[in-house]
Amino acid sequence: MGKQHVTFSDIARYTNFSKTTISRYFNRPDSLTPENQERIRQALIDLNYKENKVAKILAKGQTEFVGILVPNLYQHYFSEMLNQILLTYEEFGYKFLVFVGNENEEVEKRYLEELMSYQIEGLIIMSHTIPSAELKELPCPIVSIEREDEYISSVNCDNYMGAIQATRLLVRHGCDVLIHVNSPTSENTPAFQRIQGFRDFCRENSIRHEIIVKNMGVTHSTVSPAMRRILTEIEERYPYERKGIFFSDDTRANEFLNLLVRQYGTLPDSYRIVGFDNSPIAETAVFPISTVGQQIDVIARTAVKLLVELIRQKKEHPQEPLEIRHQVIMPVLYQRETTEYIGQGY
Amino acid sequence: MGKQHVTFSDIARYTNFSKTTISRYFNRPDSLTPENQERIRQALIDLNYKENKVAKILAKGQTEFVGILVPNLYQHYFSEMLNQILLTYEEFGYKFLVFVGNENEEVEKRYLEELMSYQIEGLIIMSHTIPSAELKELPCPIVSIEREDEYISSVNCDNYMGAIQATRLLVRHGCDVLIHVNSPTSENTPAFQRIQGFRDFCRENSIRHEIIVKNMGVTHSTVSPAMRRILTEIEERYPYERKGIFFSDDTRANEFLNLLVRQYGTLPDSYRIVGFDNSPIAETAVFPISTVGQQIDVIARTAVKLLVELIRQKKEHPQEPLEIRHQVIMPVLYQRETTEYIGQGY
Repeated sequence: MGKQHVTFSDIARYTNFSKTTISRYFNRPDSLTPENQERIRQALIDLNYKENKVAKILAKGQTEFVGILVPNLYQHYFSEMLNQILLTYEEFGYKFLVFVGNENEEVEKRYLEELMSYQIEGLIIMSHTIPSAELKELPCPIVSIEREDEYISSVNCDNYMGAIQATRLLVRHGCDVLIHVNSPTSENTPAFQRIQGFRDFCRENSIRHEIIVKNMGVTHSTVSPAMRRILTEIEERYPYERKGIFFSDDTRANEFLNLLVRQYGTLPDSYRIVGFDNSPIAETAVFPISTVGQQIDVIARTAVKLLVELIRQKKEHPQEPLEIRHQVIMPVLYQRETTEYIGQGY
Repeated sequence: MGKQHVTFSDIARYTNFSKTTISRYFNRPDSLTPENQERIRQALIDLNYKENKVAKILAKGQTEFVGILVPNLYQHYFSEMLNQILLTYEEFGYKFLVFVGNENEEVEKRYLEELMSYQIEGLIIMSHTIPSAELKELPCPIVSIEREDEYISSVNCDNYMGAIQATRLLVRHGCDVLIHVNSPTSENTPAFQRIQGFRDFCRENSIRHEIIVKNMGVTHSTVSPAMRRILTEIEERYPYERKGIFFSDDTRANEFLNLLVRQYGTLPDSYRIVGFDNSPIAETAVFPISTVGQQIDVIARTAVKLLVELIRQKKEHPQEPLEIRHQVIMPVLYQRETTEYIGQGY
């Protein structure tokens, strides 16, 4: 990590080549003999030369930058996805310019302009304020994760199969009535498939069921009171049944579980609970929560890999329109204590 | 978000200026008359010109990039800090190139080389594998957050005062013995001040106390069994006392609380608990956990602001050595249910 900055002139002086030759070494090394390439390579080591990537960008037109637009990093799902995307640097070598949009369309559009001005080679987008019909007009390849993706390539969790796994687990544990709790979800987002999968499975198997859709936010201050109201409703409606509840995410499942434990001193036998995401709270809840894990590492790697392929396609066939590809990743069911027998109490 | 790329030639043709004049407009606008500046400015609007920042970097030598090196984004503390740093784009305009180092010194050194090759103007470093004596040799200004910072500027939480706040809260709630639980912490890291503050307060006020230092990791699989052993120890050693426990972070406090609730059906009156960080788990635990909040938003903004000042200093006085500044941010105490009376049971 030296402080000195070695220039092309320094290398030229050291090797007795012209500056033009040094420049050719960096941009078209094939135009030099292997011996001369080797002489320059050795000089770079001797001089402890630090590559100037910015100059290289101008020479080659490849920034090796990928832009990432996330809604927030407060929710574990997004921070872990970003974590896993950043780790792909080791495999693919792309560097990441990261922005958080906070659900503000105007801000996100400004970020996109900024990203384009840095000539990013591709974009991974997780935020959902800008419709894919608009995103497809951007000059670089795009891959989205878990958002509306009609006109752009995407990698998503197989939410439908995840819902079926969760629902089947509740049925296996002898629940009399199944309940799915979710917030209003647009039919064209991947997450809507959780509702669809739950409904289809219950109907096909003639299982008594209910879907509760309520606005409830993502933070404790809004989720907790919403869960309290839902608990009251459910206890009134199904006093004698064993209730199997599939929550759209672990945060909500955890808040509901806490209310039960505070009320009964344990998780009573009249409840079974499954969450979604396998976020850390599922494992560190007072009774570890059964959940559908999204394989975030696989989704992240698949998204970057797909983006790299699209970038290459665009370079090789700049005139052809990019194909749109949708890939889905199978989720994994984690069976923990909230679908086991823990304690008595109706 | 147009697709077209407008070049200097296009602008020259449109305005009837030479390409040299257009280039001067971007690099030394003062060298043109106000009328000519206005004509070109209007042409850029008419042509929907997208700025090429990479070209601008070469012209001005200012990338507007800041590098960020974090140990991981799995722990909420780091993901929320990154979140808050990214949000400062709105105020300071710097773009962030982000790397996660995963505690691997060799990998982190490689990342630093890469960041330098992109001519970042400054670096914010949260990972701690590379000593500050080495970091100070890097060619750009550096600000660290919560790590050893002898030779570089830093912004840290006032950990000492945080420990005093936590300890005083436990004393106020009538604890007979105070216990601090932490993992081995190097004396030259800011977090060591949590141990120091606890010890000093107890000694100065002649309070019976104990410090338990154990390796326990940061994930459920290692923290949970470690907490189980500590609980057994504490129950044997202090069977009749009210125990006030100050944990070095909320993750550990939560695991300990869960063990108590599973054993007693509630948080018994013989325990009071305080965590550190005010991470989401503190609020969403089965009984919301009292904790010392780090004001992550203030720390993040202060760190970026300090870095921007150092960048400016370096530009204005490139020959002078950069001053080293250490700023501390006062934490905030959150009083929740784990320091209140909840239920009986010894």
